[in-house]
Amino acid sequence: MTARLLPARRLVSSLRSDWATCGQAARPPAMRTNQLSSFCGTRRLKGLLVYVHNISSSVLMVHKVHFSPSLGVFVGFVRLKKEFCAGQSQKMKLKCQKNPAFPWFGLDIGGSLVKLVYFEPQDMTEEEEEELGSLRTICSYLRSNTLYRKCVARDVQLELRDLSMRGRVGTLHFIRFQTADVTPFLAAVQEKTIGQLHRTVCATGGGAYKFENDFRTMAGVELAKLDELDCLIRGLLYLDAVGFNGKPECYYFENPTDTQRCVKRQCRLENPFPMLLVNIGSGVSVLAVYSENKYKRITGTSLGGGTFLGLCCLLTGCETFEEALEMASRGDGNNVDKLVKDIYGGDYQRFSLQGSTVASSFGHMMCKEKRDTISKEDLARATLVTITNNIGSIARMCALNEKIDRVVFVGNFLRINTLSMKLLAYAMDFWSRGQLKALFLEHEGYFGAVGAFLELLQWSEAP
Amino acid sequence: MTARLLPARRLVSSLRSDWATCGQAARPPAMRTNQLSSFCGTRRLKGLLVYVHNISSSVLMVHKVHFSPSLGVFVGFVRLKKEFCAGQSQKMKLKCQKNPAFPWFGLDIGGSLVKLVYFEPQDMTEEEEEELGSLRTICSYLRSNTLYRKCVARDVQLELRDLSMRGRVGTLHFIRFQTADVTPFLAAVQEKTIGQLHRTVCATGGGAYKFENDFRTMAGVELAKLDELDCLIRGLLYLDAVGFNGKPECYYFENPTDTQRCVKRQCRLENPFPMLLVNIGSGVSVLAVYSENKYKRITGTSLGGGTFLGLCCLLTGCETFEEALEMASRGDGNNVDKLVKDIYGGDYQRFSLQGSTVASSFGHMMCKEKRDTISKEDLARATLVTITNNIGSIARMCALNEKIDRVVFVGNFLRINTLSMKLLAYAMDFWSRGQLKALFLEHEGYFGAVGAFLELLQWSEAP
Repeated sequence: MTARLLPARRLVSSLRSDWATCGQAARPPAMRTNQLSSFCGTRRLKGLLVYVHNISSSVLMVHKVHFSPSLGVFVGFVRLKKEFCAGQSQKMKLKCQKNPAFPWFGLDIGGSLVKLVYFEPQDMTEEEEEELGSLRTICSYLRSNTLYRKCVARDVQLELRDLSMRGRVGTLHFIRFQTADVTPFLAAVQEKTIGQLHRTVCATGGGAYKFENDFRTMAGVELAKLDELDCLIRGLLYLDAVGFNGKPECYYFENPTDTQRCVKRQCRLENPFPMLLVNIGSGVSVLAVYSENKYKRITGTSLGGGTFLGLCCLLTGCETFEEALEMASRGDGNNVDKLVKDIYGGDYQRFSLQGSTVASSFGHMMCKEKRDTISKEDLARATLVTITNNIGSIARMCALNEKIDRVVFVGNFLRINTLSMKLLAYAMDFWSRGQLKALFLEHEGYFGAVGAFLELLQWSEAP
Repeated sequence: MTARLLPARRLVSSLRSDWATCGQAARPPAMRTNQLSSFCGTRRLKGLLVYVHNISSSVLMVHKVHFSPSLGVFVGFVRLKKEFCAGQSQKMKLKCQKNPAFPWFGLDIGGSLVKLVYFEPQDMTEEEEEELGSLRTICSYLRSNTLYRKCVARDVQLELRDLSMRGRVGTLHFIRFQTADVTPFLAAVQEKTIGQLHRTVCATGGGAYKFENDFRTMAGVELAKLDELDCLIRGLLYLDAVGFNGKPECYYFENPTDTQRCVKRQCRLENPFPMLLVNIGSGVSVLAVYSENKYKRITGTSLGGGTFLGLCCLLTGCETFEEALEMASRGDGNNVDKLVKDIYGGDYQRFSLQGSTVASSFGHMMCKEKRDTISKEDLARATLVTITNNIGSIARMCALNEKIDRVVFVGNFLRINTLSMKLLAYAMDFWSRGQLKALFLEHEGYFGAVGAFLELLQWSEAP
């Protein structure tokens, strides 16, 4: 789809008239969530940067891109009927040949986990299969519908189906494994493949830097290194826009301060800016995001998911995140922590600190008698509550200082971790007296990998 | 010492002329550090609230009090020669008879420790000894110059000598024991004393509320409950003003970012307001202090000294704070924590995070191989660094938001804990690029108890 494919003047004229209609709306009002994914390319039309999408059999869509050549903030849109581009299908196909070679990956190598997104087209041609070369086995492995090894997991429940990417329809898979397995994996690739892979993979996270040389020398893979926070934001905005198989990506907890009535509610991340974005991985980063490309890292804390799991392994002898969470769900942190009422006998009224507030995490554990009465489950629960509340407290301070009322929590610490999410929802609501709202996203820890994946598609689209 | 004792007009006139000289100086420039303690009372002279001090055999001193009837901010002073008040000694003695009955205590019952200050006059009369009644044994016990039981300690190195309080010269002792020992102590008092003590003791900290009934029923002691943050600030300002046996109470670390050249330097807390006051006890409170009576509690964290000790007991099997610190001094936290360079292979340059920065506290401990290689000392060190840096990070955010550049750290977590103090000094300096300064005080955890003690003297001084 180039300027030659459509009469440029009519397109631009239509585009301009639509802007007038839309004003500065952040997102085309009538856009369906899954439509955004089907883009056929970036084009300059009369000095305007536009995305052209093939969204259905009868509709084309063009978006003007504001600020950046990536997904950006959309300030206008126009729909063009299929008949408007009659006879263009052959040219469209030619266009598709410009796509990057399969497989389409996005990689995020974090402190604890590697997150990988993989696009599996529904209609892979023999030619394309051929092109895969040595990667065929890996792709077949990734397409298999099971847990791979003990440590490699595909989050089947998260996959995005019938997703249209650059003219191809397929499934986006979400896969994770431990960062500790990267080098053994590369060694296996080195051993099993004849020659090297000669591919470039878009990768983000610290491991893209740490393992760059290993990827190059052991597998012949060049890592295109991308900043993790750039990718995080891009991936998040993209997944929120395409939605989760027809449902919203985003959710919150209604009645967060009432355990009986606290329920999960889906929502759209409408007018997402500004938002406070709290990414809880091994450690924690807190960002104030004002647009896709304008954000700042306000602060961070080293007390994150890695601290929770590391401490739980030491204190309880557990081995996995799942085990740690399961223990925490059965424990009582109040046997471990010293509460305000343990010190005051009740509330600390002057500063409105309720008796049930934790005054000193693990504060009871300095006393041998108390240590002798607690269970491993209690310790796991106290660890979870300590780490979560500390993050909540830091997030709340940042939100107040930045005058942002929506706090979006992401990162793999929140995976299958409803306890922490409800604690964060409670903390935001209670301590701000209802002023702050905690939001969560279904694809918790995968936004960095999705951001890297989008960059791959972006690249081969450059003029 | 009343208006009748001195010609009020001349006193006030002299006072006023001195203000003109001193301007709005926060503290009388020529005042000796120990002079402030010898106050004989609060009086109103021609509408001015003044403190009258008997500071030596030949000099009286009068301070105007700004803002409050407590120690306040001094904006001027005047010295009056002894002959100026010739013949007043008898009346002075009468004045002294208004002092509260001995012993003079101040009590701060915290989450982990009870802090007690006790004034021992040099020249106790037989009559006063008589008045002690059942408390004589306790006082004799407190005056003994040794560690009492395993858990009760007198910080001999902190005592303030030749301190003049309300016309009496003596020593202020600093004593601490565990809060867990309060009830056994009261039971012992109940057992050993005939009848009840019929005393009122000024007490602060949560335990003043929690144990109020036990004190009343078991020992016949009425606790006059005072807010812990009020007492903290009052005690701190007082001890800074009287100094530490001729030396300053306050200090900082010069060259905090250079471990080789980092040295402790004494200083005065000149023009103390505004200051960010971070009180690290079992938990942590962060206050922005604008004057003695104007402050706000900005935030707190439950990750404090109780968390450090509780976790160390669990992870290393140690039993005491001293043991935990000693282990920490010999350990290496980098074996336990995941650093930025463990994730990135080097620095995370975009956000200026050095490779040596901790990215995930305890992050290595999710890996069995790593767990098998670390020592208990490493775990103690990692725990200390985790808790300290988290407090430092929260303090720094508060300081930036409140636009306060001096951060005063107090609380018993810092006792014999140079490691944490240097970490905090480093953190304040490094992350603020030299904009923030960390200050510390010699009587770390005793300010609440001193504040309660001052309240006792204040009371019996009411007109």
